[in-house]
Amino acid sequence: MRILVANDDGIFSPGIRALALALRELGDVVVVAPDVEQSGVGHSITIRRPLRFKHTASAGFGAIPAYRVDGTPADCVVLGVHLLGRPDLVVSGINFGVNLGLDLTHSGTVAAALEGASLGISSMALSLDLSGEEPPRFESAAQESLPIIRWVLEHGLPPKILLNLNFPSEPSKGLRITRLSTHHYEDSVVERQDPNGHPYYWVTGKPTGEEEVGTDLWAVRHGFISITPVSLDYTAYSFKAELERALQEVEGGSPR
Amino acid sequence: MRILVANDDGIFSPGIRALALALRELGDVVVVAPDVEQSGVGHSITIRRPLRFKHTASAGFGAIPAYRVDGTPADCVVLGVHLLGRPDLVVSGINFGVNLGLDLTHSGTVAAALEGASLGISSMALSLDLSGEEPPRFESAAQESLPIIRWVLEHGLPPKILLNLNFPSEPSKGLRITRLSTHHYEDSVVERQDPNGHPYYWVTGKPTGEEEVGTDLWAVRHGFISITPVSLDYTAYSFKAELERALQEVEGGSPR
Repeated sequence: MRILVANDDGIFSPGIRALALALRELGDVVVVAPDVEQSGVGHSITIRRPLRFKHTASAGFGAIPAYRVDGTPADCVVLGVHLLGRPDLVVSGINFGVNLGLDLTHSGTVAAALEGASLGISSMALSLDLSGEEPPRFESAAQESLPIIRWVLEHGLPPKILLNLNFPSEPSKGLRITRLSTHHYEDSVVERQDPNGHPYYWVTGKPTGEEEVGTDLWAVRHGFISITPVSLDYTAYSFKAELERALQEVEGGSPR
Repeated sequence: MRILVANDDGIFSPGIRALALALRELGDVVVVAPDVEQSGVGHSITIRRPLRFKHTASAGFGAIPAYRVDGTPADCVVLGVHLLGRPDLVVSGINFGVNLGLDLTHSGTVAAALEGASLGISSMALSLDLSGEEPPRFESAAQESLPIIRWVLEHGLPPKILLNLNFPSEPSKGLRITRLSTHHYEDSVVERQDPNGHPYYWVTGKPTGEEEVGTDLWAVRHGFISITPVSLDYTAYSFKAELERALQEVEGGSPR
C-alpha cells in the first residue's frame, strides 16, 4: 500500500513527522508538504506561478522520501500524485490544533484531503487538540490513528467522501463517529494606524461554537477521537424542495 | 435593504459593476472587492498580515460606495461587514466563468458567499458561463438575477445555506433548481526547466464532469439559470451509519 502524507503546517512540523513515521507500519510512505506554514489558505491551488518540488533530507524522515513544495497543501497533493505516482491513500496532518465544524472551509489540512478525494483517492485529515497543558502528543495520536487508517486501507471510502479526524489533547477514551458542529472563528477586525496616520486592519477571530452531543466539538472536548465523514457534494438537499416551490413564484412574477 | 456586493475578479471587473448597478433597484448597495483578481484562492482569510480598505472612486460605480481590499474575497466580506455595517444580503459576482460542482471548493466567488453565510447573512454567488462566442452578457445576467434576489431579500435563506447561481452564456430560458454536478478541473502537471537546468512545475487543468440531468452543469449547458442551494454542513450523513458499524470493528481490533 502506498500512502501520501501531506499537511499545512509545513514539512518541518513534528506533527507530519510523527504521522509519517507511524504509518511505515501500514505501507510505503512518501511525504509531500509545504515549505512553510500554510494555515488558513483553504482549498487553493497555485495556477498563476510555477512550483518547485524539492527532495528534503533534512526534515527528519529517515528513509521516507520527503519533498517540499513552495505552495499550498492542495498543490502538494496534486504534485505528489503526478510526480510520485498515485497512492492508495492520502493522509493530511497531524495538524497543530483542531479542525472542526465550519473550520473545514478554511482548513489547509482538510484541503489536502479534499484534493485527494477529488482525485478519487481515499483521503483523511488528522488534527490534534492543543487545549491541554502538556506538549502536543503527536506520537501517541499517530499510534491511535493506525487502526482507523488500517481499516480505511482495507475497505476504502465511498467516492467523494473523506474522513476528518480530530484527536483530543489527552490520550483518547475511544472513537466517536460525529457530525460537524457549528464551531468557527468569530471574526473581528482591529484597526491600526501606519506611521503616516493611514488606517490598516487585522482580521482576527476567537473560536466559538455549540458543544452539541454527537458533534465533532463535543467528542474531542470529552476525550474521544472524533471521526466525521465529510461529503464533497455540498448540495443542500433539505432546502431543494422548498426552493422548487419558490421557483414557480419567482418565474410567475419575473419581468422576463 | 442593505446589499454588500463582493467578487473574486477584482473591483475593476465589469461583472461586479453590472451587478452592483442593477441591484440599486432593490436596496442600498455597497461594493467591497479585491484590488486584483483572486480566482482559485478558495475560502482563505488573511490573518498573517494586515489589510488596507480603500475607497475607490475610479471603478465606475457612480454614487455606490465602493472599497477595494488587498486580500481575498472572504476578507472583503469580513471587512465590509465590520467596517460598513451588517447587510441584509451578500451577493458575490458576477464571476467571469462558471462555478459548478467541485469547483465550489476552490472558488473565490463562492467563498465570499460562504463567508457571508457563516456570519449568518443571506448570501448568494453569481457566475456567468463564457463558453459562447459573444462578449460576456453581464448586464442581462444581472437583470435576470433581480427577481431571484428580490425573492431572497423577501424570504431570507435558512441558516448555513447559500445559493449558488450560474447563468448561461445566452439569455436564459428560465430557472432550474439543481444539485451540484461532478464538474471539476482535471489537474495535470507540466514540467519546465529553469536557465540552470532545474525543474519547476505548472499545475494546469481542463474542465470535466458528467452532464447528468438535474445538475448545475446540465442546466447551464441547456440555457437555464442554475440555482443550487449549498449547505455549510458538509457531514456525509449517508455514510455515517456504515461508519458507526465499522467503528465497532475497529475498536474491537484496536491495539489500545
